[in-house]
Parts: sequence; structure tokens; C-alpha cells
Amino acid sequence: MSTLSLLFIFLNVLFSRVAGLWPIPRSLSTGNTPVKLSPTFSIQFASDFAQGTAGIPQDLLEAIERTEMYLHNDTFERLVVGRGKTDAKVLPTAIQVHSLRLTLTEKARLRSIAEEATSTIDEKMQEGIESYALKVPEFGGGRDGGVAMLQANTSLGLLRGLQTFGQMWYAYEGTKYLLNAPIEIEDGPAFPYRGFSFDTSRNFYPIADILRTLDAMSWVKLNILYWHIIDSQSFPLEVEAFPELSAKGAYSSEEVYSLKDVDTIVKYANARGIDVIMVELDSPGHTTAVSFAHPEHVACANKSPWSRYASEPPAGQLRIASNQTVAFVKDMFGSVAKRLPGRMMSSGGDEVNLACWEEDEETSEELRAKNQTIAEALNVFVEEVQGELKENGKTPFIKSDMILTHNVPVTNDTVAVVWQSSEDAVRMAQRGIRFIHQPSNFFYLDCRGGEWLGNDVLGNSWCDPFKTWQRAYSFDPHANLTTEETRLVLGGQMPLWSEQSSGENLDSIVWPRLGAGAEVFWTGEVLPDEVNATSGGNAFLRLNELRYRLVDRNVRAIALQPKWCVLRPGECDLN
Amino acid sequence: MSTLSLLFIFLNVLFSRVAGLWPIPRSLSTGNTPVKLSPTFSIQFASDFAQGTAGIPQDLLEAIERTEMYLHNDTFERLVVGRGKTDAKVLPTAIQVHSLRLTLTEKARLRSIAEEATSTIDEKMQEGIESYALKVPEFGGGRDGGVAMLQANTSLGLLRGLQTFGQMWYAYEGTKYLLNAPIEIEDGPAFPYRGFSFDTSRNFYPIADILRTLDAMSWVKLNILYWHIIDSQSFPLEVEAFPELSAKGAYSSEEVYSLKDVDTIVKYANARGIDVIMVELDSPGHTTAVSFAHPEHVACANKSPWSRYASEPPAGQLRIASNQTVAFVKDMFGSVAKRLPGRMMSSGGDEVNLACWEEDEETSEELRAKNQTIAEALNVFVEEVQGELKENGKTPFIKSDMILTHNVPVTNDTVAVVWQSSEDAVRMAQRGIRFIHQPSNFFYLDCRGGEWLGNDVLGNSWCDPFKTWQRAYSFDPHANLTTEETRLVLGGQMPLWSEQSSGENLDSIVWPRLGAGAEVFWTGEVLPDEVNATSGGNAFLRLNELRYRLVDRNVRAIALQPKWCVLRPGECDLN
Repeated sequence: MSTLSLLFIFLNVLFSRVAGLWPIPRSLSTGNTPVKLSPTFSIQFASDFAQGTAGIPQDLLEAIERTEMYLHNDTFERLVVGRGKTDAKVLPTAIQVHSLRLTLTEKARLRSIAEEATSTIDEKMQEGIESYALKVPEFGGGRDGGVAMLQANTSLGLLRGLQTFGQMWYAYEGTKYLLNAPIEIEDGPAFPYRGFSFDTSRNFYPIADILRTLDAMSWVKLNILYWHIIDSQSFPLEVEAFPELSAKGAYSSEEVYSLKDVDTIVKYANARGIDVIMVELDSPGHTTAVSFAHPEHVACANKSPWSRYASEPPAGQLRIASNQTVAFVKDMFGSVAKRLPGRMMSSGGDEVNLACWEEDEETSEELRAKNQTIAEALNVFVEEVQGELKENGKTPFIKSDMILTHNVPVTNDTVAVVWQSSEDAVRMAQRGIRFIHQPSNFFYLDCRGGEWLGNDVLGNSWCDPFKTWQRAYSFDPHANLTTEETRLVLGGQMPLWSEQSSGENLDSIVWPRLGAGAEVFWTGEVLPDEVNATSGGNAFLRLNELRYRLVDRNVRAIALQPKWCVLRPGECDLN
Repeated sequence: MSTLSLLFIFLNVLFSRVAGLWPIPRSLSTGNTPVKLSPTFSIQFASDFAQGTAGIPQDLLEAIERTEMYLHNDTFERLVVGRGKTDAKVLPTAIQVHSLRLTLTEKARLRSIAEEATSTIDEKMQEGIESYALKVPEFGGGRDGGVAMLQANTSLGLLRGLQTFGQMWYAYEGTKYLLNAPIEIEDGPAFPYRGFSFDTSRNFYPIADILRTLDAMSWVKLNILYWHIIDSQSFPLEVEAFPELSAKGAYSSEEVYSLKDVDTIVKYANARGIDVIMVELDSPGHTTAVSFAHPEHVACANKSPWSRYASEPPAGQLRIASNQTVAFVKDMFGSVAKRLPGRMMSSGGDEVNLACWEEDEETSEELRAKNQTIAEALNVFVEEVQGELKENGKTPFIKSDMILTHNVPVTNDTVAVVWQSSEDAVRMAQRGIRFIHQPSNFFYLDCRGGEWLGNDVLGNSWCDPFKTWQRAYSFDPHANLTTEETRLVLGGQMPLWSEQSSGENLDSIVWPRLGAGAEVFWTGEVLPDEVNATSGGNAFLRLNELRYRLVDRNVRAIALQPKWCVLRPGECDLN
């Protein structure tokens, strides 16, 4: 028997004792005692929790209710040959866990989950904000017998712990149990920013799809929805100051996120520990949809051939040199920013096209009048928009090419979204700018269905090939960076661009792949089971479990393997 | 303006007058008069239809009811900027179609749709079996004013016509209308065999998913479900003679197609003009799941390393040299065959592995005792199995490598499934064997999600890259064949292998791509709008329409383009 085979046997034994948690906690120790939830199991507050339950935030109470609901409703059985029945014999005598007791370490800091979720990026970077400690006991007697313990500094930390607790249990005929008590977890995120970027402009997604996605995101501890809400193709966002933008720019009146819808989505997200950033106006490019209501602000709108003026049809960019346009854009950003509790917002900035402005008469005149070059006007435009965001209390985000290609100066508090290639991270770090990773060569969730242009029918997606979960999972956030430079990495996100996606395939194109990004940025480089990420062994097993748990909760995640393989870890390895 | 641009304008004008039918009829003429369905619209039989409605088959009556139901319930609006509202002004004065009148040409031949659907392949090849003629008038007065006419030789032809009629109409505020009357269609399939091959062994699909798929197949005039029901990973089929096969070989007792389930599925399919072929036992390879109940019949079952004995895990092949095994296999095929009304059935035959038998002691002994080589035993095995199928009145189908790689002799009535490469078609034709196309380099619906083996995590699918709809659509069934050889081509099918698929992503991985195969084999090479298939122009427009119609009927087909492009034909072409 080879060393490799021995290693696999060892890993499989190891795995059989480790809960299939995703993302895996940063520190995890387990035993091999089966325990089960008591029929009267409940989640309770420690007697000295805060100032009594009267002061406990409503969204924390709701998070507890949701956890209890899942613990009651989940039907997911352990992924072994024979499923739950395999464990039936140990269940009658397993000790009972009758409660999970919540303790808050920093009593002065009892804020709602939503307040914690919408904190500034600097607050998110503080040590311990999302951390928690969780213990599941292996004995029933004594003072703490049968009591699981969850402790955190904040309501957000408690939420993360509840999400872990809710993932630990297997179902069999109404009993919820696990096999590997005692369990001790010390956990907290490697990176403060762990996102999903979501394009609702190319095709529209009903609200129910977004809410379901937010739930699933919360289960894997993602904390940012980077909502690429508008783009050139449609303007589905109701803007309070300019209702005509969506009235004329949405695909239809049914394909609009109203002010009320956005409130619903933001509240739903925040209560689940997810902040919502809006790329309001990806700007100044990707803005053709503004021209439905305000043609005066858009250069080269629908101009042909589009490929001369834009990276994809239709062409159209904001008239950066126009004072009226700059004022309009600032008002629009301000109008949206004021309604959002989050402390981060993005002005986009990718893929601007110089020919669009060079050949636009209005822009040329404005530039002449101001004695400006396009580059100078672009600098001013970005500065104005970013300033508007800051005035509204938001940390401005910007796409990396605005900095790396167009050399637009940004202030120290700006965060860059590095997207074109993973290799751009080093270039961004060398400029000393904080950034998040969104590399198209690792993280893009589209890139598979071939070309969507009408007459390039045997062409590939521009970001071909398909990025498998393994590809995303193999990403190293600190690759090629000096220790000093690693401090600039705030986290990362996987994006779904929607040229060929809609509510119909949302779950299956996103899940469980998005889990890869979630673990890369929560757990970071060192997994506690010491399995190298790209060997896939343990990660594959745990991701299979995540997939089946998602399906059990009605998220239509795709299968990663035949079930035969899922139930027999290692037997479908290449040999 | 370039000639190309002029051509696009011409095509777009042309398209605006042509119903977005899929597959497009082989002969189609249209006008430009708007007509609408009367509020009392109904489908009626011509006064001389058969011997009066008493003798009309129940499944034809049900097909009519379904068509009326869809005409009532569909909410799909025309894909133009402004959608249905764009046409609102012409609707009040549009003439009304108050009925569709059905005429049967061959009155002696009034059989049920199910009987026609389960005919032999030779019967299916008869001219006119599925043909129909359909007219939608542009005038309301006179004897035939406001009456659409559908005429066919058989109930199956009428069904095909009803499916076309059900695809012609756009909805707006409760009115169903079209813009291009008079419409005259003469239509019938280019190929008698137009299938979907569906693997329910690697992962299981609930019955509701299969029924929904059958409905969608019927809308695009596919006529064969090639049900790859079992394989090495699981045995989800209840076999009357050997109930232990599914009792022990299915993933679970919930993941079994019972005798009753199969009856339900077959009846449902047949009533929709779809035959069901079963690959009962893909044999002698891909049969490990038999070993759960009958280990005595399986060589190298689960033997390690699997890659030495099989193309994918787990290894396992029937003991071809064992008389007991051959008898068992024949009984199994017979037991399944007797319950199925279809006149075609497949014994599979792909990817057998010689080392599995060479190293199997039992097989070696049997071969010695019989003084046979493996090749000789294989010939006998196939002959026996194919003979059993014929004895049960079925035309035997077999996978192409059994003939092209293993040189197993087959009789004239056998049909080969040519799957490894499109280039194998010529080799099969040169042997004078009738065949269907299932080339992995054009038609495989999987091939995208990367490697599913556990530790080859950055590897690709073996059939990478993803086969876009355009790739499938560019397939020429007669490529490289002589006129003589083209007579051997019965049609083709696109398969879904389920290593990484399940009910969760079924619709989105299959639709609308499967439409490509449907049109290739229904309409054939010459499209009536004379748009070259691979230019994609008109086909892309029509396939977009199919996708939106599928979604309107609750099939979760993926988007092919941003809706902005869908509503503006040609504006998202590469330029």
C-alpha cells in the first residue's frame, strides 16, 4: 500500500470524526462521542446575558428562532452508505444536549446584528467582531451537562456561531445528532470582506431569488452582497430623486426594485449579517440605461458599431466633462446613498472606452471649453463621485482598471476591486491601495455558455473556461505579496455576471461554487484539518455535504459527483 | 452601409413577419395580417373526421385539451421593445380565428397517439406518419373565414400540428394573436428518430422532473426518450423478475422507479408522441450496480484501482462467459421488455474493459472450460442479449464502440448509437449499419463542470469544453456521407450524463440547448428561411423565443443573452 493510500485512509478516518462544516472553523477539535438534541432543545441566554432579554436586539432573537427552525426542519442525513440508518444503533443511548447557552463577552457592546453588519470597513477589520467560541459537550450530568455553549463579543459573532451550530447536526427519523463530541471551536474570519457580486441588470431576478441567495450566503458566513444593480442594459433600481430612470430604463414595470423592495432586501440581508453595497451607476462606463430617461447625460449611446465604443453592447458612457452630468450623477449617488445603512459603496469604473468620448461632440466641446483632456476630466469626475460617497459616510470602492489602466488618483480610504486578473493584485499592492480580490481568472461564476453575441456563434465566453469550484478554491489571497502588502488585502468576492443567467439558473450556477470563495476568505490559508486546499480531499467531502444541506433547505445547488462517490469518500479519486 | 448590414436589416424585417417557431417547419409561408383567437375559440373535428368523435382516441382528445389549456394560460408576449403593448393598436380590428378544424387524411388509420408513438423504427420511417399541414387564415367571412385548418395522416401528425399551432401565438392582456397571417405550413420530420438520452443512475431524478422534461420535449417535436436508466453507480429500476436489483442497488428506497412509475412515465410520454427506449443494463460494462444484489454475475466489482478496470468508478462488468450470467441478463431484459410498449430497446455496450475479464478468475475458468477467447465470449453475449430483445419484438440498439472497437457482429436490423466522435459516423456507414448520431464532440449536454473525480481537482471534464447550443446546432447529420450512406442515418439525440446533474439543475442544463438537436433532426439541413444554421441569426432569435416560452410554461430554461439583446435582434451581433 502506497503512502498516498495510507494518507487517504487516514483522512477518511479523520473526516468520519469531523463535522462537515463549511467554511471550516479556524480552530476545531473533536472527539468521538455521539450526542443528540433533546426533544425540548432550546437556545437560551446565559443568566447574565446583557441586561436581560428585554434589551436583546430583535434580529438576534429572530436569528435564534431561525436556527431553532432549521434544527427542527432539516432532514439532511449523514452522507455514508446507508445514510442515517447507519447511526441508528448509537442514538438511543447518546447523551442529550438540551440547550445552547449564549454568552456575550462585551456586554457594553450589545448592538443589533444589522448595526454590526453595516459597520465601516475599519470596524469590520477590528479583531474579534465576528469571532465566536462554541462547545458541544460529551457528558450529560453536572452543572453544564447537556449544555452547549456559544460565546462571542458581539451579536454578529453570536450569529456566526449559530450558523455553525446549525450546520453540525445530522437528521435521522426526527432525531438530530452528531458523532464527534466533545467539539470545541474557536473561530473568526481571516478577512473582514467576504462577498458575492451580483448583476441584476443584464437580466432581472425576482426578489424571492435574492432573499433565498442571502439566506444561503449567511449559512457560509459571507458578509457582503455587492449588488451590481444597474448597467448598460437596464436600470432596474428606483432612485428617489430620479424615478424616471427606472420608469424608462427598466425592462418593464415588473422588473424594478422599488424603494420598498430595496429596503426589504437590505433589511433581510443585514439581519443575516450581510452588508449590502451598491454599485450605483457603475460609472462612467456601463451606463447606457441612463439614456432611456436622460439622453443628455450619455455619450455614444447605442452608437454603432458598439465594439468601437464599448466592451459589450450597447455602447454608452456618462459625459464626464459636462457639469450638468456630474451634478446629476452626484445627486443620483447621494439619493441612493442616503437610503442605505451600509458604510461602503462603489462607483464601479470598469472598462471605460476613450473613443466614445473622443468622438462625442458634446464632450469635445466641454473639454475645449474647460481646456481639459479626457484623462483630466476623468480624474475630476471620479474625484467628484467618490467625494459624494464620502460625504454620505461611505467608504468608496472602485474597479481596479480605473487605477491601473487610467491612473486615476484615489485617496487612501478608497478600496479597489481587483478584477481583470489575479496578477493585478501585486500591482495594486505596490501602489499601497487597499483592495479586494475578484479575479476573473479564478472567481467568475459565468464563463461557460459560449459567446452570447448574436453572430459569433461558435465563439467562447471572453472569460472561458468555466471556473470550477476547485479553481476558485485554489486561489491564494496572499500570493506574490510581501508581508507588508498582505495588510492591504481586505478579502474578496465571486461575481455572477448575468448575460446568460436569470432566476431560472441562479441557484445552480452559484451553488455550491460560491462556497469556495466563502471558505477562502473566512478560513484563509491554514485549514485546521491540514489538508492542502488544492488536494481537494477533505474540502470535496465537506463541499458535498454543503451541497446536500443546501438542497435540503430548498436551494437548488448542483451535484458535484455521482451520489455513489459522495457516499464513499476517496473511492472516486483518480488512481 | 455594408452588404452585411443590409443583410441584417433584411433578416430582421423577415423575422418580424415570421412566427418564432421551433423547430421551424420545413415549408412555411406567411403574410402580414394580424389575427387573434376568438374568446370562444375551440379546436374541433371536421364533420367527416373518422367515424365521429365516439371513435376518437382518448389521447388525441387530451392533446387537444392540453393545446386549448396552453392557448388559454400562456402569458408569453412578443419579444420586441415594449413587448405586447407594441401590438395593442392592431388587436381591436384584427379578424378573429374562432376555431381550429382537424382533418384526418387516412381515415382507416385512426390509431391512438400512443400506438403511433410506439411503432417500429421501420414504421416511423414511412413517409407522412408525423406530417401535417396547417393554415391560419387572414379573412373572417365566407365558408372557411376565421377557421384555421390542420390536416394530417395520423393522430401523431395531428399532435405535431397542434404543437406548432400552440407555439404561434403571442399574449397581450388576455388576447392571443399573431401578426403574420395567412400562414401556410407543410411540415414533417427530416429524420424519424429525434431523441434525448437521459441518465438516471449517476444521480436520481424525481418523476415530476421527468414528466416536465417530456412535456418540453413534445413542444419541440422530439419523439424518443432514450432512458439510460441504470449504470454502475445505482440501479433505480424495479425489474419485475428481479426486485432485489433495485431493492439493493438503488441509492435508497425513495430513489427507485417502480413498475407503476415506469408505466406512468411511459404512458405520459406516449400520449405526447414520445417513445421510450430503455437502455436496460447498459451491458456488459457499466453494470457494477447489479453486484449489490447479484455479486456472482459481476467481474471486478469495485476492484481497485478502478482506472485499470473501468472508464469511471466503480469498476464492474457482467461475467460474459458465465452461462448463469447470460441467462440472468436475458431474463432481466425480457422482464423489462415485456412491460414496455415501445418497439426499440438498447443493450448499451459502451466502454468495456478487457483487463476486468482477463484478471477475473471466474471468467478465466469459464473461458477455459468453453475454449473461448474474451472476444468470442463477447460476441456470444451480445448475440444472446440482442436475440432476447428481438424475441420480445424490439429492434435492438447498441453503442458504436461495440462494433467499431470490438468488432462484435450485429444483424442488419440492429441500430448503432454513434457516440465517441462525429467522425465515427462514416466508419459506421461504411459497414452498412443503420445508426443514430450522438457525437460527444457536438451533443453532450454535460462537459463543463470540471473533473468530478476526487483528487484531480484542477482537471477538466473528459468531454470538455462545454457544448454550446450553437455547437450542437452546427452539426450536419449527412457530413462526409455518400448519398447512399445517408439512408443509414435514422436521426440523433443529445444526451445528459448525470455525474454532475440532478433534478436541481435539469432544466437549466438541458434547455433550451436540447432544442438545437430537435431542429437539426426535425427540419434538417435546409431551413425555409434560408438562413445558414451556423450564422445563428434567425435561429438565435427563434431560440430566444423558445427559451421565453419554456419559462412561461415553468421550465427553467437558461437565458442565452441579456434581455436587452433579445428585444433587439441583431444589435448584439459582433461588429
